[in-house]
Amino acid sequence: MEKTKVAILGCGFIANIHMESYAKFVPDSEVVAVYGRHIEKAKDFAKTHKIKSYYSDLDQLLAESNCDVVDICIPNYAHYDACMKAAKAGKHVIVEKPIALTLEQADEMIAECKKVGKLLMYAEELCFAPKYERVRMLAENNAFGKLYMIKQAEKHSGPHSRWFYEKDLAGGGVMMDMGCHALAWFRWILGGNPKVKSVYASMATVMHDTECDDNTVTMVEFEGGVLAVAEDSWAKQGGMDDCIEVYGDKGVSYADLFRGNSALTYSLDGYDYAMEKAGSSKGWTFTVYEEAFNQGYPQELQHFIECVREGLTPKVTGEDGRAVLEMIYAAYESAKTGKKVELPFEPKVDKPIDLWK
Amino acid sequence: MEKTKVAILGCGFIANIHMESYAKFVPDSEVVAVYGRHIEKAKDFAKTHKIKSYYSDLDQLLAESNCDVVDICIPNYAHYDACMKAAKAGKHVIVEKPIALTLEQADEMIAECKKVGKLLMYAEELCFAPKYERVRMLAENNAFGKLYMIKQAEKHSGPHSRWFYEKDLAGGGVMMDMGCHALAWFRWILGGNPKVKSVYASMATVMHDTECDDNTVTMVEFEGGVLAVAEDSWAKQGGMDDCIEVYGDKGVSYADLFRGNSALTYSLDGYDYAMEKAGSSKGWTFTVYEEAFNQGYPQELQHFIECVREGLTPKVTGEDGRAVLEMIYAAYESAKTGKKVELPFEPKVDKPIDLWK
Amino acid sequence: MEKTKVAILGCGFIANIHMESYAKFVPDSEVVAVYGRHIEKAKDFAKTHKIKSYYSDLDQLLAESNCDVVDICIPNYAHYDACMKAAKAGKHVIVEKPIALTLEQADEMIAECKKVGKLLMYAEELCFAPKYERVRMLAENNAFGKLYMIKQAEKHSGPHSRWFYEKDLAGGGVMMDMGCHALAWFRWILGGNPKVKSVYASMATVMHDTECDDNTVTMVEFEGGVLAVAEDSWAKQGGMDDCIEVYGDKGVSYADLFRGNSALTYSLDGYDYAMEKAGSSKGWTFTVYEEAFNQGYPQELQHFIECVREGLTPKVTGEDGRAVLEMIYAAYESAKTGKKVELPFEPKVDKPIDLWK
Amino acid sequence: MEKTKVAILGCGFIANIHMESYAKFVPDSEVVAVYGRHIEKAKDFAKTHKIKSYYSDLDQLLAESNCDVVDICIPNYAHYDACMKAAKAGKHVIVEKPIALTLEQADEMIAECKKVGKLLMYAEELCFAPKYERVRMLAENNAFGKLYMIKQAEKHSGPHSRWFYEKDLAGGGVMMDMGCHALAWFRWILGGNPKVKSVYASMATVMHDTECDDNTVTMVEFEGGVLAVAEDSWAKQGGMDDCIEVYGDKGVSYADLFRGNSALTYSLDGYDYAMEKAGSSKGWTFTVYEEAFNQGYPQELQHFIECVREGLTPKVTGEDGRAVLEMIYAAYESAKTGKKVELPFEPKVDKPIDLWK
Repeated sequence: MEKTKVAILGCGFIANIHMESYAKFVPDSEVVAVYGRHIEKAKDFAKTHKIKSYYSDLDQLLAESNCDVVDICIPNYAHYDACMKAAKAGKHVIVEKPIALTLEQADEMIAECKKVGKLLMYAEELCFAPKYERVRMLAENNAFGKLYMIKQAEKHSGPHSRWFYEKDLAGGGVMMDMGCHALAWFRWILGGNPKVKSVYASMATVMHDTECDDNTVTMVEFEGGVLAVAEDSWAKQGGMDDCIEVYGDKGVSYADLFRGNSALTYSLDGYDYAMEKAGSSKGWTFTVYEEAFNQGYPQELQHFIECVREGLTPKVTGEDGRAVLEMIYAAYESAKTGKKVELPFEPKVDKPIDLWK
Repeated sequence: MEKTKVAILGCGFIANIHMESYAKFVPDSEVVAVYGRHIEKAKDFAKTHKIKSYYSDLDQLLAESNCDVVDICIPNYAHYDACMKAAKAGKHVIVEKPIALTLEQADEMIAECKKVGKLLMYAEELCFAPKYERVRMLAENNAFGKLYMIKQAEKHSGPHSRWFYEKDLAGGGVMMDMGCHALAWFRWILGGNPKVKSVYASMATVMHDTECDDNTVTMVEFEGGVLAVAEDSWAKQGGMDDCIEVYGDKGVSYADLFRGNSALTYSLDGYDYAMEKAGSSKGWTFTVYEEAFNQGYPQELQHFIECVREGLTPKVTGEDGRAVLEMIYAAYESAKTGKKVELPFEPKVDKPIDLWK
Repeated sequence: MEKTKVAILGCGFIANIHMESYAKFVPDSEVVAVYGRHIEKAKDFAKTHKIKSYYSDLDQLLAESNCDVVDICIPNYAHYDACMKAAKAGKHVIVEKPIALTLEQADEMIAECKKVGKLLMYAEELCFAPKYERVRMLAENNAFGKLYMIKQAEKHSGPHSRWFYEKDLAGGGVMMDMGCHALAWFRWILGGNPKVKSVYASMATVMHDTECDDNTVTMVEFEGGVLAVAEDSWAKQGGMDDCIEVYGDKGVSYADLFRGNSALTYSLDGYDYAMEKAGSSKGWTFTVYEEAFNQGYPQELQHFIECVREGLTPKVTGEDGRAVLEMIYAAYESAKTGKKVELPFEPKVDKPIDLWK
Repeated sequence: MEKTKVAILGCGFIANIHMESYAKFVPDSEVVAVYGRHIEKAKDFAKTHKIKSYYSDLDQLLAESNCDVVDICIPNYAHYDACMKAAKAGKHVIVEKPIALTLEQADEMIAECKKVGKLLMYAEELCFAPKYERVRMLAENNAFGKLYMIKQAEKHSGPHSRWFYEKDLAGGGVMMDMGCHALAWFRWILGGNPKVKSVYASMATVMHDTECDDNTVTMVEFEGGVLAVAEDSWAKQGGMDDCIEVYGDKGVSYADLFRGNSALTYSLDGYDYAMEKAGSSKGWTFTVYEEAFNQGYPQELQHFIECVREGLTPKVTGEDGRAVLEMIYAAYESAKTGKKVELPFEPKVDKPIDLWK
């Protein structure tokens, strides 16, 4: 059977992670094209990764590259257009989180992909991170009794690219960038599509020069009585933190993807790289390994390619991305009003952060 | 100089910890009397600890024991009466947390001690826990830059004594029992008397047969922009957890008093005692040591006795206990309304939990 | 290009790990046959893993299966015969550790493979374990300055199969079974073929009913001044331990593959599986994930298959297996004499443990 | 009852730790005099700690200070003279580790104290470190079944004072300085006076400009079959390490006094002090607290003062110090010969390191 042809849109941080995951862990796939807004960046990316074609014009890529799947790794504001064009061109779509800026965009993306009979796959890698999946399966197998609280946190010192800090491009701050991981993973461990009762969030801009939120704590109440707590920050020094806690009346589990998994290293003079956002590698550091694998990227893309090849339903779909976005809306509304916001909550806005300030 | 004479009220868990702390670490003190509602228990306690007198009548104790200090280690509902009697009898008062059931009681206790010129000392041991104090001093010395978030959590599988679960005796559940630690410690690391803007809390009864809350998450916004998050639970299996996190724009610190401090032990057949609420000691356990010292009890009582002897102002006073109680009021109100509650908040109630349900 | 065809010899623990590694992570390979001494076991293994043919006669397998590579996962005493037959049949050979019972066997195996122009690949997965490889690369890139001490430990409560405890079948105890990992990894981090000056070992049988060693500590002095310490035990309760420490005059690193990498779980009622040799999963456990990947098995087999396909020299060869075996000889001799044994050390014996007792 | 009067000999690192331990945790004691070779240092020490008298002449101190106990915290080579003079002056003696440079000196010290009816107390604080004591009691109470291996390690980047590196003043390197802790603690957890069968050691000078050993690994075989492994280093970067491992056929325990007990801190700009020998406090550090208490110094001195006051036998005596010194002799001999050295081993030498080189 032939390899499944993928076109990657974007040449930044996450595009590189996807690229390396395909190359190293998804033998049934072949990345055949890359798109970058600046043709030079696309060319460099193609050269580095031995991709045969590169484009700075998306329509041209869709017309010429002969890809089966379009993998959208460009800024949030551009997700909608790229998805709609790809679907209309008859491609399957993988879209990085968050799905889009508005619920209306998400609805159209879902509808268009359905109309053309192509998959819309929502790239939430935490649903594939092997350590978290191990804990989720423990929960599924009743190792903790009845769950009553779950937590997820993701924190670092802020994104590299400037667009993350621009509310018109990103739609919001750390809640859009990293809060979406927590919200998607809460749904995942609670069976895939649990009903949300309410969302409460506290948001602030504590470190960066931005109108966006850079530190948030969010509580979600699910039907059936589980409380979920998300902590997301762009203001934490000392490298990445990604961790979960799962509480049931008969047990508990703690897992983290960075510090716990690392070698613990002391180096007087420092070395190449400790972990994402670690800053200096002098002194004590937590040295990670196989970062992409441990975060679930290869497993996610493997699954998506398998879905395309075998006609399976993806574990995480456009509908999941939309459900997360609705919770993000509610979080911003709550941060403004100081009240729990009950779902469904579908106001008309241009972007989520408009609900806050 | 003569030793300072202490009468302990109560013969339970916390009375034992105080007793052992005095005996082992507070050489300037002498416990001269113990009070228990049941005379047999008081007698046993006195015998075990070689205390010369024991009582089941508080008035008699106050009249006969010749103590300088009354240390109140009895259930919450009885704090007020005991404090008022002790003050009227001309004794200094140490009162275990929480200070009382109502703000009105707290106000009277504070006023009465002031009137008779005696100290009202609020026993918040986390302000003395040596590891937490080390971290607090780092914050004070600017190791973390400007603080923007602080967290404290305390969790176990629930108290031994039945009265904790009775709302009329305890005034509330885990928020009264353990939430008060977080709230007092937040104030302490923020300089002692920071101004609270608002309190939000999510509360539930997830495990125990009680009308009280047994799992809560609380967010406090302080003036100046620090967000504080408290997690308190009686529903966590696997032994005690007591931990803090301190976040500033230039650094972070994580500290915990139980798991991190332990020996990590595996025993096929089990052994005497791993840690508070650990359940079985078979298999892997976290073996704690010097529990009282590491939680700050001896340092707290040392400080209080020194205050009595030297006429110093205690680091934690009745006013601090009252401020914590006001935040607890706000937390219960918030749990009911689903909204942030702004302080000051001083409704008239019989007990805090009445604000919730 | 066609897939490389592999025949697995053996149906036990390690054969399963190899099988799963090929299937999940080595897309260029296909397992086409399995050999088991008992035909029923071979049949079951083949059925479970969808392998087309199975044999209890090795000659028949070699004649019929059309495999390119023979992967030897049978007991130590049978390595030599299997390798010789496979080489004579014109197959590449992967041999699980330890290479053989004697240096003479190892020499013949190396010579025969060379004669027929086939690869002899020595399956030391620690040279591929991704966390250890990360630390090794730090050392290579001078993160620690000049190395002066390295350590590796592997411990659990003893193998499942009875043959490991029989000295005629295994050639020795925990030193043969797990000491070989440490010795091979020491060589690997020191550049691949460092010169050994001396070996000292303390050995004992402390728990199991066997003539073999079940607890050993071994010190190896390398030319250039690095001291290497290996700890190997079949007597440790509480599950697997596999860890390294690397010390240089400018830094240090600690890494472990099991406890550190785990989710930390408490379960009142227990669950399916915590980690290798963990015993009960009730109470606190260290829940591992992706065990094979984290120990390096897939990466090792990927590399070996790539060597076969591309004609590359394996990172770990028969010569490496032989060098490890010589150090094992020296360790047993030292355990008997209480003296450092200097290398080269090539006495004639039937099996290594004969040098001890 | 009057306080017990102590004279401290020495004004360096360990003298400060003893001083602070007396002042903070040993209320029955009073430090009444300090001796320093340089009168200015003694004066400063006395001033800092509010000690009434200070001396640079030991005879004068003994004649005038009216102390009950002499606490010897001066370099190794001076232990013997100080002890002999103190005993002849009718004082109880506390002597820091190691007891002396030679077995003959140790024998005389023991004999002289016995003759004058005074206590000779050997200051091995690990026998009092509360976490290690907790683990030792678990062993005593059979939590681990039958012990077969115990380990202790102590490592940092080297002592501050130059005399530690001079073999004539210190008698040896890290083995004398820190190896003695391991050897004494091995005896302690094995019941106080277990019989040693043999000692093997590997020693090297890997980092410092000294003739002394700065990195050693030592194995001790005890009668009854327990293997003990000591690791001691002055070549480890990144701060202090002090840890134990206890293995029995039914369990295991791991405990450490520094990293595990710390707050985990990240500070961009650094702060006052992380832990002994930590170097910079920028970046990630392990922030210790109550260092002296956690290492057992106050508990040790409390015990010694109690022995003096109550006429009790110390838990650690001159005989224990002598037994440790004999094992150190054997270790140096073994490092030279590459053989296990069996005890008793009592060669005539000027200092232990002469046996090595």
